[in-house]
Amino acid sequence: MTDRLGGSRFVGGPDYVALSEQTVRTFLAPLAEVSALLGGEATQWTVREVGDGNLNLVFIVKGPKGGIVVKQSLPYVRMVGESWPLPLDRIFFEYEALKIQSAAVPHLVPKLYHFDRGMAAIVMELLEPHLILRKGLIGGIRYPKLAEDVATFAAGTLFATSDLGSPAVVKKERQSLFCNNITLCKITEDLVFTDPYQIAPMNRWTTPQLDDVAAEFRHDSALKVAVQELKWMFLSRGEALLHADLHTGSIMVTPNQTRVIDPEFAFYGPMGFDVGAFMANLLLAYFSQSGHATKGDDRRAYQVWILETLETFWTTFNRLFLAHWREGGGDAFPKPLFDDAAGEAALDAYRIKTMARLFADAIGFTGAKMARRILGLAHVEDLESIIDPDLRAQCEKRALRMARTLMTERQTLTSIHEIRDMAETIEREPVR
Amino acid sequence: MTDRLGGSRFVGGPDYVALSEQTVRTFLAPLAEVSALLGGEATQWTVREVGDGNLNLVFIVKGPKGGIVVKQSLPYVRMVGESWPLPLDRIFFEYEALKIQSAAVPHLVPKLYHFDRGMAAIVMELLEPHLILRKGLIGGIRYPKLAEDVATFAAGTLFATSDLGSPAVVKKERQSLFCNNITLCKITEDLVFTDPYQIAPMNRWTTPQLDDVAAEFRHDSALKVAVQELKWMFLSRGEALLHADLHTGSIMVTPNQTRVIDPEFAFYGPMGFDVGAFMANLLLAYFSQSGHATKGDDRRAYQVWILETLETFWTTFNRLFLAHWREGGGDAFPKPLFDDAAGEAALDAYRIKTMARLFADAIGFTGAKMARRILGLAHVEDLESIIDPDLRAQCEKRALRMARTLMTERQTLTSIHEIRDMAETIEREPVR
Repeated sequence: MTDRLGGSRFVGGPDYVALSEQTVRTFLAPLAEVSALLGGEATQWTVREVGDGNLNLVFIVKGPKGGIVVKQSLPYVRMVGESWPLPLDRIFFEYEALKIQSAAVPHLVPKLYHFDRGMAAIVMELLEPHLILRKGLIGGIRYPKLAEDVATFAAGTLFATSDLGSPAVVKKERQSLFCNNITLCKITEDLVFTDPYQIAPMNRWTTPQLDDVAAEFRHDSALKVAVQELKWMFLSRGEALLHADLHTGSIMVTPNQTRVIDPEFAFYGPMGFDVGAFMANLLLAYFSQSGHATKGDDRRAYQVWILETLETFWTTFNRLFLAHWREGGGDAFPKPLFDDAAGEAALDAYRIKTMARLFADAIGFTGAKMARRILGLAHVEDLESIIDPDLRAQCEKRALRMARTLMTERQTLTSIHEIRDMAETIEREPVR
Repeated sequence: MTDRLGGSRFVGGPDYVALSEQTVRTFLAPLAEVSALLGGEATQWTVREVGDGNLNLVFIVKGPKGGIVVKQSLPYVRMVGESWPLPLDRIFFEYEALKIQSAAVPHLVPKLYHFDRGMAAIVMELLEPHLILRKGLIGGIRYPKLAEDVATFAAGTLFATSDLGSPAVVKKERQSLFCNNITLCKITEDLVFTDPYQIAPMNRWTTPQLDDVAAEFRHDSALKVAVQELKWMFLSRGEALLHADLHTGSIMVTPNQTRVIDPEFAFYGPMGFDVGAFMANLLLAYFSQSGHATKGDDRRAYQVWILETLETFWTTFNRLFLAHWREGGGDAFPKPLFDDAAGEAALDAYRIKTMARLFADAIGFTGAKMARRILGLAHVEDLESIIDPDLRAQCEKRALRMARTLMTERQTLTSIHEIRDMAETIEREPVR
């Protein structure tokens, strides 16, 4: 792990083999720390494969004393099959990102126990009884600390890895490493920013209900310029080390605890991308609620909670990021240059202006991340689990209307209140 | 050279030794291509060390048939001495950058003959009878093709290496490499964007004449915010592979030929930095002319030529960059997404808007690059060669006034005409 430059090339050695529920024990038994954590003998350990994501194997292993998780890269995209190969080294980027995130916000990410480069596997903390946030949102569960925890994660990790919070020499060395996470970045570039706006073999949507709006997205020149501007930012603005997949499926929760997992897409990109990813998935949850309404619960009150969470998330992120910046630590805007009252005042005015720019970026990415989940390859359970296609299409049309506005008008929308109002207005109005 | 990742770590082997006029022949003799180019026997070759720059050894070697140049990194900053160590690997980045530039604009860079990693040396084309452009500008020589050639270089190299002109997979691999050019980037970060705005041991200026304005620069909060915003862009916007030192000392000319040399600072940064570097050095040449006036030549006509060159440079750069972009080739704004008339019109409006943004960036960097040459460590011969300190200070004060305005008002200055007018107005007005 000390060979930072180019180290990623050596992930997945000649002995690499995909683990199975049978072989995980043999893999773990020689690891003293892990064995002690599980307790007892390897034969007493239970193993269950639970990977329900798109890309990897995930095993939960439990022993008499405790449990752990083993996550292993597969050399292809799991949801598609061996026809779509994917480099094993993504687990290396996940491991490197987790280490950096652990330093910034140790209480918000899983503990790392072991990394096996040759096997492309991480052994880490078992989060129990945590639930994937997306499932909680579908279930209508409230998480009082969620907004603040995710804001703390985003502000802490983005600031610490930006030029505002870290010296250029540290940042450039890390950026050199994460620039090699090419294949996973390319997935985002294609699936988020490109395919939903053209005829692409892997696109799918609720058909025929959404055929018209899908065609509108493919022929809306202003929208396509807006989304390509966002793509250019994604490609060229190395502002901070992003989680880069910060949706509600990458967050595990209890009512009192939040953990962010799965940073395998990590790379240096625009900060608004992470902020927007979380906001997009809250808004997808919001617009899907009417599809989950029951006689006893129309989900209106829960929708209010989701929008409150959205608002608290942004206001807390804004506050925490500013607080970090006021402490300083990076090579941009070094504190000694602004050490008198006039200097501090001018710099603080600039900080506020920057947060407004970051907000505009974030809501643009919010729109892009919403649309791709309805018109592109990978959809979200919030909407997919609505069985009635007409009802689902209604939810999806509302979400797409909001997504489009966020992308094309991001420079004129200036407050999280406006975003909240927009969501409420779109939800109230009839769907054409 | 095939080991792109991390390859830079191995520059300067155990046998590295600084070359001398005596040892250069022994170094070159085994190289068949170079020997053939020089002709005759090694004993017939003449060697002259001509490095007048700040960092390296440069030898001109001539034989019966032709000549070549050997450039070798020294492990310290030549103008300061061994107390300021500098990694040898900068010659590797220069070599890699030259290869990329050669592919984009082969007629505007020197030919490469050989790279010796262990000796940290490049063997390349001898440019003869070319003069360093800076010396030509001091001498009042006109170069009719200069503006167009440098615009062609900048538009060609910046576009080809940007996300507008190259696929993300190629760009990310290169960016990973150039992110390791940490030490040379840090020199720019400190000497251009930081030191001139604070008390720093290596700063110097024409004293006491400029003491007041130097103090003003250190206490001007709006200016310091503006220059730090530029620094943040320099640190975080990997728009394209920059030459990153594109001043008039890095350009060799005859009245009919232009060659850009010395890209050892190369890295992925904001495109406006290269554009601004050249404009800054034209403006420094402009404001220094009154210091070089003689009875027979007040240099007024030459000043007009410099501003015409400035104007032609930007308008040509703008035209060529747009032309490249209209052809496409990169992953941002893929052409198939805009293949109807409405799409092409919307995209072209965005292109024009982007050029305006790029102009604002460029003139900001122009200001920063001007000020550092008057208040920081490294000065320029255009001004230094004015012996009378009062006369020199008058030129420098004008240049600083312009530099400050360019940095603080870059968002409201929208045309190269305005820049030209501003220079003429400042030159006409009395210096306080």
